[in-house]
Amino acid sequence: MTTQERAAAAKQAMEELRAFLRERVTSSQAVREHHSRGEDTLPAAPPDLVCFPQSTEEVSSIVRIAAAHQLAIVPFGSGTSLEGHVQAIHGGICIDMMRMNRVLRIGAEDMDATVEAGVTRGQLEKALANTGLTLFIDPGADASLGGMTSTAASGTTAVRYGTMRENVLGLKVVLADGRVIHTGTRARKSSAGYDLTHLFVGAEGTLGVITEITLRLHAQPEAASVAIAGFPSIQAAIDTVIEVIQLGVNPARIEFLDEEMVRAINRFSAIGLAECPTILFEFHGVSVANVTESATMAEELCNAHGCSSFEQQSNLADRERLWKAHHDAYFAARALRPGSGVIISDACVPLSRLAECIVATRADLDRERFPAVILGHVGDGNFHVLSLPSEEELPEAGAFAHRLVQRALGMGGTCSGEHGVGLGKKKYLEAEHGEALSVMRAIKQALDPVNRMNPGKILDLTTGN
Amino acid sequence: MTTQERAAAAKQAMEELRAFLRERVTSSQAVREHHSRGEDTLPAAPPDLVCFPQSTEEVSSIVRIAAAHQLAIVPFGSGTSLEGHVQAIHGGICIDMMRMNRVLRIGAEDMDATVEAGVTRGQLEKALANTGLTLFIDPGADASLGGMTSTAASGTTAVRYGTMRENVLGLKVVLADGRVIHTGTRARKSSAGYDLTHLFVGAEGTLGVITEITLRLHAQPEAASVAIAGFPSIQAAIDTVIEVIQLGVNPARIEFLDEEMVRAINRFSAIGLAECPTILFEFHGVSVANVTESATMAEELCNAHGCSSFEQQSNLADRERLWKAHHDAYFAARALRPGSGVIISDACVPLSRLAECIVATRADLDRERFPAVILGHVGDGNFHVLSLPSEEELPEAGAFAHRLVQRALGMGGTCSGEHGVGLGKKKYLEAEHGEALSVMRAIKQALDPVNRMNPGKILDLTTGN
Repeated sequence: MTTQERAAAAKQAMEELRAFLRERVTSSQAVREHHSRGEDTLPAAPPDLVCFPQSTEEVSSIVRIAAAHQLAIVPFGSGTSLEGHVQAIHGGICIDMMRMNRVLRIGAEDMDATVEAGVTRGQLEKALANTGLTLFIDPGADASLGGMTSTAASGTTAVRYGTMRENVLGLKVVLADGRVIHTGTRARKSSAGYDLTHLFVGAEGTLGVITEITLRLHAQPEAASVAIAGFPSIQAAIDTVIEVIQLGVNPARIEFLDEEMVRAINRFSAIGLAECPTILFEFHGVSVANVTESATMAEELCNAHGCSSFEQQSNLADRERLWKAHHDAYFAARALRPGSGVIISDACVPLSRLAECIVATRADLDRERFPAVILGHVGDGNFHVLSLPSEEELPEAGAFAHRLVQRALGMGGTCSGEHGVGLGKKKYLEAEHGEALSVMRAIKQALDPVNRMNPGKILDLTTGN
Repeated sequence: MTTQERAAAAKQAMEELRAFLRERVTSSQAVREHHSRGEDTLPAAPPDLVCFPQSTEEVSSIVRIAAAHQLAIVPFGSGTSLEGHVQAIHGGICIDMMRMNRVLRIGAEDMDATVEAGVTRGQLEKALANTGLTLFIDPGADASLGGMTSTAASGTTAVRYGTMRENVLGLKVVLADGRVIHTGTRARKSSAGYDLTHLFVGAEGTLGVITEITLRLHAQPEAASVAIAGFPSIQAAIDTVIEVIQLGVNPARIEFLDEEMVRAINRFSAIGLAECPTILFEFHGVSVANVTESATMAEELCNAHGCSSFEQQSNLADRERLWKAHHDAYFAARALRPGSGVIISDACVPLSRLAECIVATRADLDRERFPAVILGHVGDGNFHVLSLPSEEELPEAGAFAHRLVQRALGMGGTCSGEHGVGLGKKKYLEAEHGEALSVMRAIKQALDPVNRMNPGKILDLTTGN
């Protein structure tokens, strides 16, 4: 399709869309630019049109119209993608899901909820107030649940409560031809046929547009406490993490901060942490006694690994202050070099290789000119590097990020622990998946034969990836 | 393909297979009959040949030879299928996986293991002795892990530790054309591309032959105890289960037995349980204090629902005696009517509908002439009916099983909680999945275009299901 043909198709589609979306479809440049990228550093690419549907039926109609005019579809949530998931690299129609923001059902006895895809984590938490239930998935951003589903997001609490993969029970999805399907049931488990739910979780909109999500919820813990442990080395910190998990302590959070990250947080949040490799624990339990027991066991293991300080905080204000400072790590890192962009890497390796991987990564960073900090959800073997290169250091930062992925893959890990593939990680899928990539292509071809659903994300359908 | 053509194809394939399998391929009638069914009550259907490969490469060669001669492939594990997964309804080559029984790797720090598909649960547990690790999935039978993966099996401990879906981290799979892929990585989570692991879990061999499985393991609990609670009604028992889960007590097992089941177990195992609706709890924790606290909380909730007896047993011998009696429920049921076959149903509904579903099912059974008992993994909303019809009552038992599925589907549940679809549940997939069934068909067609992999199981590729 030439640029002119695409413009003509978009114009025709616009007329048909306006018939039922009215002012909820636009080709205004400002709106298109707002929908041309996420929070990544990849080049922006605006769609031709942006729609704001309010129902699955409207999404289905949009997709049918896109099909009739051979236009691409790009779903858009809160715009917090870090890997170029929402760039409309082939133009087409962006479906902004954020007006599909109703919590449709909360099942107290079933401990589940059904939401529209544009509901954010924060909106769901508000709706769950006073139910004693929560969705324990915290990727940092107040992302839409559709986006979190599409990238298989996780975050700090996955070590105990799982990622989106473990917490999505069912979906409503609009397919490439506009048909609407539901996947899963409201039962908590099933062996009845192919697991389509898990196929769409993490598919980044390339197989269909997710419009509704049924989520598993968890009981709010009766008691909780946090602990801050400082270590003489990265190795000692990670060895402790492994033993805490092996012993079945089952913390709700185990977050690692390297010395540079701690220093940045201290400067930004004035929280006065000891400046050394640090583990933040959170323990959940049915009682204070229960939580204290977990913390005591963790403390013993920390001490056995030469922990220099183990500080428990069980009152809510202290806990919130600590996690607020942790949440602000991104801003703390930015403050290390005001005006610089931040490149966020996302590696995940087997726990047995994690210490080695972080140590090698820190040594690698120490040879670079740009500042960088390391933090991670180490109970899952997942960590991030926040790099702050100047404009002219960008190529070096890119080369570092590439080496990090190679290192993770070399250790049996993955190129993306929780941020997804988008455009940014496509080039690594061949190395990670080998021949299995051809199976992914076959599935994409079966469900989206003309490559209209978020085309060019995760994989290409032409030769090579 | 006519019967004669198939016989000729099998003969040719036999020659080619013998070249590398030698005596590990056979067309002997005894072996073919042994591989003609599982433990289900569906008609037997023997394959033309049975192979006993010892490596993924051999499986790949077998599949290539089957492809060249247009013969079907049916993978076969421990033969404990309850839904007709292994009947060779189109003949062809049965691949008995039980000589692929090596535990390839145990990762103590990563808490995972990689096994060949023919390793049974029991063999893995033996290999894990003294590691402090275990696979907490207990479907009753000493099934092969390949079979358990292929049916997304679960059992008594899924309420705390998850089903095979949550515990399979990666797979090695032989595709329909003989290519070998691996899915997943050794990292504990990933957002890198489509989730092929979950696609093959539960696919019952219809998309490929699983030859290796990487499994998540769990720490053996430091302390454990069981409790037996008797209730005045099914409703009271299930209401208690819901509250125990809502409170975050997180038991390792919550098994329901109806009054008839308790009576049968008492008679068979002389265990002296009070004959009323009963819940068996097992609690796991990091210490005796921890486990006692869980049991106390459960006891309070039981009492609030009119529990007539709550008996804790924390010594190992008592616990083992209880679970042995529970495991023998099948034999206890059979003893109700010696010589009769047992039809095992497998329904799973949202917890909020579970009491209603079991009460209605019991009332339904009470109108039948054949004896039947109910037991279930009620923390997941999953329960089984063991029916013992005489030869002439078989049609009534079938009609009952059909009503049970309809009831479960009507309550937002699934036709199969953990036994799979095979031949037995195919007819319900349209009602359960609707349009999504066409997506399952599209995936089957993409991965197995000539319908050679366990053909006729889960779905048919012709019109209708």
